[in-house]
Amino acid sequence: MPDQSKTFFRSVGRATDALRPVRLTPHYVAAAEGSVLIEIGNTRVLCNATVEQGVPTWLRNSGRGWVTAEYGMLPRATLTRSPREAERGKVGGRTHEIQRLIGRSLRAVVDMKALGERMVILDCDVLQADGGTRTAAITGACAALGIALNRMVKTGALSKSPLTQFVAATSVGVVEDTVLLDLAYEEDSQAEVDMNVVMTEDGGLVEVQATAERTPFARSRMLEMMDQAARGIEQLLEAQRAVLKEAV
Amino acid sequence: MPDQSKTFFRSVGRATDALRPVRLTPHYVAAAEGSVLIEIGNTRVLCNATVEQGVPTWLRNSGRGWVTAEYGMLPRATLTRSPREAERGKVGGRTHEIQRLIGRSLRAVVDMKALGERMVILDCDVLQADGGTRTAAITGACAALGIALNRMVKTGALSKSPLTQFVAATSVGVVEDTVLLDLAYEEDSQAEVDMNVVMTEDGGLVEVQATAERTPFARSRMLEMMDQAARGIEQLLEAQRAVLKEAV
Amino acid sequence: MPDQSKTFFRSVGRATDALRPVRLTPHYVAAAEGSVLIEIGNTRVLCNATVEQGVPTWLRNSGRGWVTAEYGMLPRATLTRSPREAERGKVGGRTHEIQRLIGRSLRAVVDMKALGERMVILDCDVLQADGGTRTAAITGACAALGIALNRMVKTGALSKSPLTQFVAATSVGVVEDTVLLDLAYEEDSQAEVDMNVVMTEDGGLVEVQATAERTPFARSRMLEMMDQAARGIEQLLEAQRAVLKEAV
Amino acid sequence: MPDQSKTFFRSVGRATDALRPVRLTPHYVAAAEGSVLIEIGNTRVLCNATVEQGVPTWLRNSGRGWVTAEYGMLPRATLTRSPREAERGKVGGRTHEIQRLIGRSLRAVVDMKALGERMVILDCDVLQADGGTRTAAITGACAALGIALNRMVKTGALSKSPLTQFVAATSVGVVEDTVLLDLAYEEDSQAEVDMNVVMTEDGGLVEVQATAERTPFARSRMLEMMDQAARGIEQLLEAQRAVLKEAV
Amino acid sequence: MPDQSKTFFRSVGRATDALRPVRLTPHYVAAAEGSVLIEIGNTRVLCNATVEQGVPTWLRNSGRGWVTAEYGMLPRATLTRSPREAERGKVGGRTHEIQRLIGRSLRAVVDMKALGERMVILDCDVLQADGGTRTAAITGACAALGIALNRMVKTGALSKSPLTQFVAATSVGVVEDTVLLDLAYEEDSQAEVDMNVVMTEDGGLVEVQATAERTPFARSRMLEMMDQAARGIEQLLEAQRAVLKEAV
Amino acid sequence: MPDQSKTFFRSVGRATDALRPVRLTPHYVAAAEGSVLIEIGNTRVLCNATVEQGVPTWLRNSGRGWVTAEYGMLPRATLTRSPREAERGKVGGRTHEIQRLIGRSLRAVVDMKALGERMVILDCDVLQADGGTRTAAITGACAALGIALNRMVKTGALSKSPLTQFVAATSVGVVEDTVLLDLAYEEDSQAEVDMNVVMTEDGGLVEVQATAERTPFARSRMLEMMDQAARGIEQLLEAQRAVLKEAV
Repeated sequence: MPDQSKTFFRSVGRATDALRPVRLTPHYVAAAEGSVLIEIGNTRVLCNATVEQGVPTWLRNSGRGWVTAEYGMLPRATLTRSPREAERGKVGGRTHEIQRLIGRSLRAVVDMKALGERMVILDCDVLQADGGTRTAAITGACAALGIALNRMVKTGALSKSPLTQFVAATSVGVVEDTVLLDLAYEEDSQAEVDMNVVMTEDGGLVEVQATAERTPFARSRMLEMMDQAARGIEQLLEAQRAVLKEAV
Repeated sequence: MPDQSKTFFRSVGRATDALRPVRLTPHYVAAAEGSVLIEIGNTRVLCNATVEQGVPTWLRNSGRGWVTAEYGMLPRATLTRSPREAERGKVGGRTHEIQRLIGRSLRAVVDMKALGERMVILDCDVLQADGGTRTAAITGACAALGIALNRMVKTGALSKSPLTQFVAATSVGVVEDTVLLDLAYEEDSQAEVDMNVVMTEDGGLVEVQATAERTPFARSRMLEMMDQAARGIEQLLEAQRAVLKEAV
Repeated sequence: MPDQSKTFFRSVGRATDALRPVRLTPHYVAAAEGSVLIEIGNTRVLCNATVEQGVPTWLRNSGRGWVTAEYGMLPRATLTRSPREAERGKVGGRTHEIQRLIGRSLRAVVDMKALGERMVILDCDVLQADGGTRTAAITGACAALGIALNRMVKTGALSKSPLTQFVAATSVGVVEDTVLLDLAYEEDSQAEVDMNVVMTEDGGLVEVQATAERTPFARSRMLEMMDQAARGIEQLLEAQRAVLKEAV
Repeated sequence: MPDQSKTFFRSVGRATDALRPVRLTPHYVAAAEGSVLIEIGNTRVLCNATVEQGVPTWLRNSGRGWVTAEYGMLPRATLTRSPREAERGKVGGRTHEIQRLIGRSLRAVVDMKALGERMVILDCDVLQADGGTRTAAITGACAALGIALNRMVKTGALSKSPLTQFVAATSVGVVEDTVLLDLAYEEDSQAEVDMNVVMTEDGGLVEVQATAERTPFARSRMLEMMDQAARGIEQLLEAQRAVLKEAV
Repeated sequence: MPDQSKTFFRSVGRATDALRPVRLTPHYVAAAEGSVLIEIGNTRVLCNATVEQGVPTWLRNSGRGWVTAEYGMLPRATLTRSPREAERGKVGGRTHEIQRLIGRSLRAVVDMKALGERMVILDCDVLQADGGTRTAAITGACAALGIALNRMVKTGALSKSPLTQFVAATSVGVVEDTVLLDLAYEEDSQAEVDMNVVMTEDGGLVEVQATAERTPFARSRMLEMMDQAARGIEQLLEAQRAVLKEAV
Repeated sequence: MPDQSKTFFRSVGRATDALRPVRLTPHYVAAAEGSVLIEIGNTRVLCNATVEQGVPTWLRNSGRGWVTAEYGMLPRATLTRSPREAERGKVGGRTHEIQRLIGRSLRAVVDMKALGERMVILDCDVLQADGGTRTAAITGACAALGIALNRMVKTGALSKSPLTQFVAATSVGVVEDTVLLDLAYEEDSQAEVDMNVVMTEDGGLVEVQATAERTPFARSRMLEMMDQAARGIEQLLEAQRAVLKEAV
């Protein structure tokens, strides 16, 4: 039971174990093979899937495909403007870390043999950032990937979708000793512990990343956080299923 | 009078001298001082204005402000995916050319003395590209700039807006010997001559750039194109005035 | 009629509609297929043409050639030293803008079918800069290109030169409400409007770029500037014809 | 109980829950404020601590210090040579991810107020890589940091060491359905699940990162892995305590 | 005595111990504090000296000045075109090696105390390359430096020139067992040993760099080469003295 | 005869013509084809040889091999920390100069025909720097190269080693008018002249680089330095022969 006495820093009426409002808009960009604009509260990420023939060198003639992701943030997605990575001439460490996480998460639910020697690139671009952009990107990118693969089934390029199940992600944190689901930016900046969980429809874990921002955390606290994350992810998986149906 | 026998390559029902549908959505991003999503047909550019204290070194202690712009395109804004400039580690020539054009266009309508030692950065990011992204960026950025400056008047940071008048831009081209206003991507790729015009409310020209894609063009043809551009820009200026009123 | 009362800021005895002294020296560099040192007043640009077999990927097997340009400025070409672009690790926006302009201008007068699958690269390096370097580069590069192509005709590599006609360029500006042809650096820095015109022998326009440095300009003013530019370009085209004859 | 029938892929005589031989050599480099060469099996990482006056901009005048890490791998640390990051001109995503992990892990055990406005940089360079380089780097870097801070206590720069407790890390994985502690390279490349655990002396968790390489894993499996990691980390913490005593 | 039977690979009539024709043109660029175009045979290097107030950080408040050099080669200075370093985004190893050599050579003949906290940058840009560009750059840069410093004496910025004496450089090589002075490109490419000597007016050595291109060389051969270099450098020093007088 | 009255700045008991203690440890890294850790006093350089099939483009189908080197320095190899070149995004001039020197030195003792179309890359990474890192790198790299080539003879990939003889290098300098062999860092920073000599077993010179740090040096002084270097190199060649025997 969330401790209501402490939730004053959440937006009004939001329980400690409640996700922010979730909205997935399919086909936001017309040209992409799969396109989903995901909004979770004020966080807004545009996820576009591009399917290309061929695979990276190390997979050639393996009969297997590849799924990768790139992540970017518009300069004014944040409260104060951040310099453009293209202008700085290099991709920052945080960006690298996030795009690797998105790629790994999606590869866990794709049957690479069934995909064949094709590469799917998921571009996740943050239009507005209010916490949880990396988990929103995973959730949105999986939906965009699903749409792209379904379209290939429709055109006959694939006999069935190589997506074995949906995968979605959310964050959980501890603020003033209370476990909070789906941290908004202001909450995240106060969090003592920060955790991202990536989970599939059958309840399997794909990634668990827990970080003590200030003080180490106990194992029991970690389990409590994983439980709350699991309940949030169930709702995100439901939203993915809904948008895929709508997109057909 | 446009020659109707040739307009088969335009989208159905669109006259040679007609703009595509124009929509300006203010406050698309909450955190920016000024934010406008401009849509012209399928071209969609997010324009965000950031106001920062201080100016570049060469203007320090001059009592004058500065306005500059950055332009980017999401990898899947286009029909086929283009590599991310941040990944390539450098900003391309086309990007440079465009962001310089946007900056010059806006500086022509700002009273830098009145702005004082502040810098306004206009980030123009193309979410979807269907021709005319640079002219849409100028038009949208001017609106975002207007909103940001009005807000400063409201908060008392400025006594009146340093924006002397609106500036807007459109493209004109020649396809199969016919002058066409506001080229969509497919039209642009067939054009023999391509022209961008940037004009203010009092009819003054800020930039005129005409380029022969294949064969040189006559002076009379250039005048014809400028006339058509002027009529299109009048409508864009009207849309800017409307969104500024709405945004208050 | 130029208003003589205002020409005090021009070098002594130079009329408002007069070009600075023009000199084209062929074969400045022995190894290049075509080489011209162009001097316009104190502006000095070395233009070298290199002919390479093969074309960029997107033109392979098209039977068509390509012409491109690169532009550079020696660090001490200018009044105060500018950092070397190679040291800064990137080509600046101004450089990009200029080399794209030179390339487009030359491509408008080359018959790419007749050139065949070859690439001509025009390196334009500014040894000394006193205004008008980009237009001098276009004029000099066209002459260097002409020499290179004539040489190929001589050796039998081509049956006739794919250069359909010469193209040359100059700048015009408005200073203290007076239209001035071929701006030197000091004049350029005072100009209210700045215009570059690229024109061919048959009077066709290839590029027109007019920019209001401070206040927007009227359409009538633009036409006046284009007239003056045209008269200057006639003389530059004459100089190109002369150097090509000399170079044989 | 480890299933002995499956341990054929481990080096001879090594139990599933056994660390490889661990050796920490202090003062490997004479000039560094703290220096430890850590060897875990064939993995060899040189960890050097540098103490600098001053902190990054965002901490100035906060009275607080900062701890950060950089990670590198010699080109021939690996089985086949990898190109040098300095030659490629950019730090790769994996490197970024690792050095951020090391930095976060160490910051969790340093009292930044007690450190004062100083920055400690931990350089972790892999001389030979045989799996577990990032966890070895954390363990070695914490010892190097401890030596550097103790030295500052000795010279009177600090009244007591700001290191609140030791932190160490190890990896655990699942290979052929068996949980294995401290994966060597060959084991790691076969692993279905890969987990890194960073833990302090009082049993607090600082980072937990679990990744499904191929198939999602169950929550119970994760708990089993965390238990095994905890037992391994106890031994590493003991080795850290020993080297700190030796180093005095 | 040079063995005449072997000199067939030299340009007609040139003895093994003869320099190519040397020409130094002062004030080639008007804006630079010192400017010399040096031509040695077909090698042509433009050397410009820029004097800036202030010194690099490590010399601040030392009362001492600094002299440094940058070296570049135009893309078509060579027989076949080389890519522009600015486009490749980095300065190559050869360029680095050469500009460090030029800087060291000049610093050996400047009294840094007398120069005071000023920095002189020597830009050496190769317009045409036919062997010996680095030694020509040293010789030309020293003359440009001399002109710049004399000019400062004239304007009263310095009471006497901090240039203690001239320094000049040439190359020597061994081709078909014959020692050749001042190698042209074709000779250089056949050389078994290649040596650069930098020497001052009083006969002091500043740099000696001898390299076996294929087979190691004997000490006696090295001495023979140094003798021949010394005789050539005498003539270059004479040319420097002449151009300095002319430049006043 | 060294002047003993001046050797106070040398480490106790070290004569002016004595090398520091030399130690070569073979097989420091297990995976490399050839690996030697060379220690000369406190200078410690890890030299690893990698043999790759194939050669750079310009040697393809020539039947000849290639030998090249890369050099790096760990950030805390030096007294104060130097920024990592990978982080700065470019290889510095000093690094370029050194790795070119190492490569040239080794190529002089390899029979490229006998090597065949293979490339050997020598990675020389400085773990601790106390002067003479570039000459230690040459000496260590030649030993690592020898081991790698012998191993290829053993496996039958080559019938005999293409290494024609050993090559080694040392530095000599002049401090307070005394010639000193094998300068340590503190000595090097006081040196008036600094010289690196690279010599083969048969006494042939491969590279001689002498630099006046402050005042030009006489030819006689140079000969004196070369003599002392030759005596030091004899001992290094002996150490190379010993480690090659041990390594078999």
